[in-house]
Amino acid sequence: MSVSKKLRVGILGASGYTGADLVRLLLSHPNVEIVLMTAERKAGLPIGDVFPHLAHYDLPDLISIDDIEWPAVDLDVVFCALPHATSQEVIKGLFHATKHSLLDEMIVETTSDLADAISKEVKVIDLSADFRLRDIDVYAKWYGREHSAASLQPKAVYGLPEVNRAAIAKAHLVACPGCYPTAALLALLPVLQAGQILATDIIIDAKSGVSGSGRSLKEANLFVEVAEAIHPYGVGHHRHMPEIEQELSLAAGEDVRISFTPHLVPMNRGELETIYVKLADGVTADQLKAKLVETYQGEPFVSVLNGETVPATRMVRGSNHCVLNVFEDRIEGRAIIVSAIDNLVKGSSGQAIQNMNLMMGLDESTGLTQAPMFP
Amino acid sequence: MSVSKKLRVGILGASGYTGADLVRLLLSHPNVEIVLMTAERKAGLPIGDVFPHLAHYDLPDLISIDDIEWPAVDLDVVFCALPHATSQEVIKGLFHATKHSLLDEMIVETTSDLADAISKEVKVIDLSADFRLRDIDVYAKWYGREHSAASLQPKAVYGLPEVNRAAIAKAHLVACPGCYPTAALLALLPVLQAGQILATDIIIDAKSGVSGSGRSLKEANLFVEVAEAIHPYGVGHHRHMPEIEQELSLAAGEDVRISFTPHLVPMNRGELETIYVKLADGVTADQLKAKLVETYQGEPFVSVLNGETVPATRMVRGSNHCVLNVFEDRIEGRAIIVSAIDNLVKGSSGQAIQNMNLMMGLDESTGLTQAPMFP
Amino acid sequence: MSVSKKLRVGILGASGYTGADLVRLLLSHPNVEIVLMTAERKAGLPIGDVFPHLAHYDLPDLISIDDIEWPAVDLDVVFCALPHATSQEVIKGLFHATKHSLLDEMIVETTSDLADAISKEVKVIDLSADFRLRDIDVYAKWYGREHSAASLQPKAVYGLPEVNRAAIAKAHLVACPGCYPTAALLALLPVLQAGQILATDIIIDAKSGVSGSGRSLKEANLFVEVAEAIHPYGVGHHRHMPEIEQELSLAAGEDVRISFTPHLVPMNRGELETIYVKLADGVTADQLKAKLVETYQGEPFVSVLNGETVPATRMVRGSNHCVLNVFEDRIEGRAIIVSAIDNLVKGSSGQAIQNMNLMMGLDESTGLTQAPMFP
Amino acid sequence: MSVSKKLRVGILGASGYTGADLVRLLLSHPNVEIVLMTAERKAGLPIGDVFPHLAHYDLPDLISIDDIEWPAVDLDVVFCALPHATSQEVIKGLFHATKHSLLDEMIVETTSDLADAISKEVKVIDLSADFRLRDIDVYAKWYGREHSAASLQPKAVYGLPEVNRAAIAKAHLVACPGCYPTAALLALLPVLQAGQILATDIIIDAKSGVSGSGRSLKEANLFVEVAEAIHPYGVGHHRHMPEIEQELSLAAGEDVRISFTPHLVPMNRGELETIYVKLADGVTADQLKAKLVETYQGEPFVSVLNGETVPATRMVRGSNHCVLNVFEDRIEGRAIIVSAIDNLVKGSSGQAIQNMNLMMGLDESTGLTQAPMFP
Repeated sequence: MSVSKKLRVGILGASGYTGADLVRLLLSHPNVEIVLMTAERKAGLPIGDVFPHLAHYDLPDLISIDDIEWPAVDLDVVFCALPHATSQEVIKGLFHATKHSLLDEMIVETTSDLADAISKEVKVIDLSADFRLRDIDVYAKWYGREHSAASLQPKAVYGLPEVNRAAIAKAHLVACPGCYPTAALLALLPVLQAGQILATDIIIDAKSGVSGSGRSLKEANLFVEVAEAIHPYGVGHHRHMPEIEQELSLAAGEDVRISFTPHLVPMNRGELETIYVKLADGVTADQLKAKLVETYQGEPFVSVLNGETVPATRMVRGSNHCVLNVFEDRIEGRAIIVSAIDNLVKGSSGQAIQNMNLMMGLDESTGLTQAPMFP
Repeated sequence: MSVSKKLRVGILGASGYTGADLVRLLLSHPNVEIVLMTAERKAGLPIGDVFPHLAHYDLPDLISIDDIEWPAVDLDVVFCALPHATSQEVIKGLFHATKHSLLDEMIVETTSDLADAISKEVKVIDLSADFRLRDIDVYAKWYGREHSAASLQPKAVYGLPEVNRAAIAKAHLVACPGCYPTAALLALLPVLQAGQILATDIIIDAKSGVSGSGRSLKEANLFVEVAEAIHPYGVGHHRHMPEIEQELSLAAGEDVRISFTPHLVPMNRGELETIYVKLADGVTADQLKAKLVETYQGEPFVSVLNGETVPATRMVRGSNHCVLNVFEDRIEGRAIIVSAIDNLVKGSSGQAIQNMNLMMGLDESTGLTQAPMFP
Repeated sequence: MSVSKKLRVGILGASGYTGADLVRLLLSHPNVEIVLMTAERKAGLPIGDVFPHLAHYDLPDLISIDDIEWPAVDLDVVFCALPHATSQEVIKGLFHATKHSLLDEMIVETTSDLADAISKEVKVIDLSADFRLRDIDVYAKWYGREHSAASLQPKAVYGLPEVNRAAIAKAHLVACPGCYPTAALLALLPVLQAGQILATDIIIDAKSGVSGSGRSLKEANLFVEVAEAIHPYGVGHHRHMPEIEQELSLAAGEDVRISFTPHLVPMNRGELETIYVKLADGVTADQLKAKLVETYQGEPFVSVLNGETVPATRMVRGSNHCVLNVFEDRIEGRAIIVSAIDNLVKGSSGQAIQNMNLMMGLDESTGLTQAPMFP
Repeated sequence: MSVSKKLRVGILGASGYTGADLVRLLLSHPNVEIVLMTAERKAGLPIGDVFPHLAHYDLPDLISIDDIEWPAVDLDVVFCALPHATSQEVIKGLFHATKHSLLDEMIVETTSDLADAISKEVKVIDLSADFRLRDIDVYAKWYGREHSAASLQPKAVYGLPEVNRAAIAKAHLVACPGCYPTAALLALLPVLQAGQILATDIIIDAKSGVSGSGRSLKEANLFVEVAEAIHPYGVGHHRHMPEIEQELSLAAGEDVRISFTPHLVPMNRGELETIYVKLADGVTADQLKAKLVETYQGEPFVSVLNGETVPATRMVRGSNHCVLNVFEDRIEGRAIIVSAIDNLVKGSSGQAIQNMNLMMGLDESTGLTQAPMFP
C-alpha cells in the first residue's frame, strides 16, 4: 500500500469507551484517516462535546448512521462499535447500501491483487458480539432474540489474529473477540490443542476494569457503587461463556464447557484472568509454559513472562499487549495460567486495528506500538 | 460480669492497621478500657501522632513492650497485633512476667466461676500467625524458622468462633485466624464436613484490599503500584495455605491440599473469595446452600444471601459480617461458593474482639454491632 | 427521656446515600427505633434490595409517602432526605396530615416538660436545601422556582448545632446545612464574627467525594468518568454559595459575597475545604487559630489540630467530626484555614442526628461517638 | 536532521516514575535511540526487573553512572532524572568527563550549522530542581544546602518552551520546570505580563496525583494512606513556590509573592490548579480569556477551552497537553483560571522531550502527538 494514500476509515458508535479508544489509537496510525464518526443520540455534535479529551484533534463531527451518504463517503474500513443486535442490523444495511458482494452470496476471491479488492469493497470490523457465535441457535439462546443477519454469519471471521491470521487477511467481515475471550483463548488454545490439559475442567476466574461495562447509565457503574469494593457478576450465565467454549471446542475437537466467573474491579482499564487447569497425564506446568513460549515466539503482542513474574494489568495498560505466565498448582496434576490484557485495547479497539492491519495488507503492528502507560 | 467494672485491655503493636482497627472497635465496646498500647519505633508518642484520626480520643500514649510494668498494669486481656516471630517471643515473655499457669503446663480448669479465673490470669488473643499452625514442623517449613514457644503451641485455641466457640470460651491463648482462612473456612467447613464436596479439588481464588499487607514500607504497597491495576501474588506459596489446609483436613478427616491464589485489589479494605468446588455424587448446589443456611441460622455475623444475590465486599465494609452465597457452576458436578468479609474486621480485629467476648463471658456481639459503611 | 421508650423515627427518602447513612448511624443509636422508611420508586421492596449491606437488620420495608398512615404511625421524628422541591411539598403535607401547630401559625412554647411536647407533635429534620435559605427570593433565584411552602420558611431553624444550639432545641423544623456550608461555616464564623478577617475577600476551594452527588444516574457520576481524575464543577454558580453567604452575612453584620469552587475527587466520602482569607489589620494567623481553639473548646465534634498538622479527610471518615487548622499564608496579611469533614456524616446524616438529639433533649453525642474508620 | 541517523540518548535515573515516562515517550519518538540508562541501586538489572511493563522493549540494561564510558558512549542528549542535589553533582561531572565548553565558561555560539554543534557537545536536560532557581541564595535557602555547581547555574535555560523557545533552542543545559510551576505559569504569565491581574494577590490551589511524589518508600505514599482521601501538604513552604515566584517576577517586572497550596489526590497522574486572581481596574474575565486564547493560538500543546467547559485532568491523561479556562468569580473584580496537565508528561518527561526537540532542531511535537488516554 502506498504511504501517501491513507485508508478512509469510519467509526460507527463513536461515543462509547470503545469508540474513544479506537479514535485514540487511530490518531497515531500513519495509514489512516478518520473520515466519519456516528453516534445516534449525539448526532450533530463535535466529538469534543462527548469526549473533551479529543477536542483538540481534527476529527469529523458526529452524525447519525442514517445520514451517511454511502457510496460517496468512499470508506475503506468500517469499525462497528455499536451495541449488539443494533450491530447486525447496521452491518446488513451497510452491505446493502454499498452493494457488497458478501450479501450476494458471492465471496470475493482473494487474489494477489489485494489492493484492487480493497478499492472496491468496504471491510467491516465488528466489535460487538453479533458475529462471534457461529451457531445462530446458540446466539438466540444467549441473547434472547433471533439473529437478523443469519446469512452473513457464516462469512464472518473470528478476529483473533494470533490464531486466525490467514483467514482474517482475506475476510470482509471480522468479528472481534470479546475482551474476556481474548485473554482466555490466548492462554488456553495452544495447550488445549496440544492435548496438554483436560477439556473438562477449565475454570476461569476473571477480573475486569469498569470500562468493560460501557458508558451506559446503570447504577452498578456509579463511582460510589464500584470504588473501594469488589464483587462477581453474571455468575453462571455471562454471555462470553459460549464464545469461549466455541473456540475451545474447535481447538479440543470436542464440546467444551467451562466455568467462568467475572468480577468488577475498581479500576478504569485492565483485565486479568486466573485460569485453573487440570494437566493431562504426565504433563507438567513447565511443559505448558514451554508450549506457550514456543507458540508466541515472534508474536508482537503476546509475551510469556520470565521465571515466576506474575502478569499484572499495570504491565499492559493502554497497550495492545497480552502477558502470560504459568504456575504449578499446589494440588498435584493442576496448573494455573495467568493472563493480563487491557480490556479496551487487546480486548477490543487495539485488536480491531490489528485485524484491520491484516485485512489491509499492512504490517500487523502498525499504529499499535506505543508502550504501556505506567504509572 | 458487672457492667460497672470495665475490662483492662492492652494492645501490643498498636501502630499497624490491625492495631488501628482494634482501637476503633474497642472505643465503641461498652465493657472495655484500653489501658496500654505499645509500638516499638513509636514509643513515647501519643497515638494521634501515628494515627491522626485517633487524636481526639482518650487513649494512653504508646510505650515499648519492655516498659510494661507487668503485674501493676493488671491487664485482663492482651491483644497481640505484632509481626509473626515477634509475637511468640513476646507472648512467652508475657506469660513469664505474669507467672501464667499456661507456662506451668497446668491448664486452668474452667469452672462456672469464670469471673474468678479472669481476675487472676491474663487472656491473650494473638492476631499474628504464630499460634495458628498446630504442627510446629509445618510452621518451621512455611516460616523458615523454628518456633520458639513450642510448648505453648498445643495450648492455643484456633479462634474461629462459629466453629470453635466452646474451646475459645475456656482458652487463655487464642490464635486468631488469618483473613483469607476466615473467609474460606466459613464457606467450606460445613459442606466439607457433611461430605457434600470433594476434599481433593478445592480451588480458592481470593481478592484482598491493600490494608492486608500492613503499613510496612514496600514498593508493592505504594499507591501508584496498586491503583488502576490488579495482580495475583504468592502464587503457589502463600502462608495462609497450610492454615486453611489444617482446618479443612480436620473437617474432612483426611489430608486436604488446596489451590489458593490471592490477588491485590485497589481498595483499602475488603476480601472476596470465589471458591470452586466439586460436588459429591448426587449433591446439588442447592443442597450446599441449604447446608450453609442451616449452619449459620442464628449466627450474628454470618449470612447466606437470598436468591442469586452475589456477595460483595461493599456489603460488609467496616463490619464483622461475612456474607456467603452458592451458585451452580456451568460445569456439571461443580458449584461456586462466594464469601466476602472485611479483612480488617471479621478477618482480624473484629474477630479478635468476638473471641475476647467469648473468653470473658460477654455476649459475643458486644461492641461489634455497627452496620457496614456504604458508601 | 426514659431509656425504655424509644423514639419512633421515620426516614423519607431512604434509598439515597444520605438515607443509607442515616440508617447506618441510627442503627447504633440507643434511643431510636426506625419505624418507617419511604422510597417512591422502590416502594414495596425490603431495604436489602436497595442497599444489600442493610439486609441483615430488622428494618421496615420501603413504602410510598402516600401510603403513610399519618397519625397511626405516631412518629416522634421525621428525617426528610428527599430531593429539594419535593421536600417542601412533602413537609407541608406532613404538617397538614398531623395537624401540626406550625401550620397554625402558633409556635409551640418550649416548656420544661419537653417530653409532653414530643408526644404531641412530630419534629422534622430536613436534609434538603428547601428550608436553608431564609429569603424566598434568593431561593427562587438559585433554584429556578417559587418556594411552595413560603409560610413555613420563617419557622425553620438552621441546623448548625455549634452555632445555633438553643434555637435548634426548641425547633419543630430544622433545615440541616449543606455539606459544603458546614465545613466552611465552622471554619469561618468565629473569626469573621470576631472581626479577625475581612468579609470582602473569602475564597473557598472545596473538594468532595462522589457520594455528595447522590445516587442518581448521571454520566458525570460513572466510575470511569471520575476515577483517576479531578475537576472543578459549578464554577461561579453552585447552590451552596447563597447558603454560605447568608450565614456569613449574619455573622459579619454586612452582606458577604464569597468565592467558592467545588471539585470532584475520586473517593466515596470526604470533604476538604482550603479557605484563603485576608486578615484584619494587625491580626495574625496564630490569633485566628486561638479564636477557633477557644470557640470549639469542649465541642464534641469540632477539633483544632495541634501544630502544623494538616486536616485530612481520612481523619474523619465515617465520623461526625470536623478537623480544622490555620496556617500562615506566604502572602503577608493572609491566612489559610483548612477544614475537613465526612460529607455524609457531619455534612449531612450525622449532623441531622446531632440536631435530633438536641431537639429531643438527648445528649448531643448520642449515637455519634463511633471513631473514624481508617484505613 | 537526517531521518536515518538517530539521536543517541541517555537517561540518568531511569528507575523512577519520571524515568519510566521518559522511556515510554521516547520509545515512540522516531528520531531517538535510547543507548544508556542508569539506576544506582538497580545497576546490572534489565529494565524489565524494575518496570515490568517495559520488559518487552529493546532497551539497554541499567548501569551505574560511575560505569558510563563517557566519550565512547557518544551521547547527543542526556536526560537527568535524578534527585535534586545529586543532579548538580552528576551534571558537573558529566561536563568534565566530556570536556564540555560550558565548563570552560565559553558558551558555544549557535550557528545555522546546528548539526555541527550537536555532533560535538552533549545537550543536557535536567528534570530535577537543581538548575531552576537562578539565585543560588534562594536555592540554598529552600533546599538547605549550598549549590555545588554554582558556575553552571547562569548557563542553564528555564525550559518552558511556550515562553522561552528561542533560548532553549540554543541551550546546552536546560532546567525543566517543576510540574506545579508548569501548570501555573502557562495560566498566569501572559495575563500578568499584560498587566491584566494584580501581582500581589495570586492564590494557587493545586491538586496532584501521587506519581508526583516519586517511587520512594514513604508512609505517606502507601496506597492505604492515600486512597479514599484528600489532604493538603507543604502548606506555606513547598519548594515550587520560589520557582513560580521567580518566573512571575520576571513577567511582572516586580517581586511577586504567591499563595500556593498543593493537595494529594488519590489518582496516579494528573495535576489541576485552580488559580484565584484579582483583576486590574477595568479588566474582565473575558479579557483574560481572550489574552490566553491569543497567546496560545497555534501552540501545539496548550489549549483554552470553549465556553464554560471546565479543565479536567482526564482530558490530558498521558499526553503533553495543557488545558486552560477562565471564569468570572462571584466576588467582583476577581477571576478564576483553571489549568490541567499530566504531571508526568507536560509537567515533566513530555516537556523534557519538547525541550530536546527544540534543542536538536526537530519539530517541537515530534514523539509527543499521542492522544490523551480516556478512559
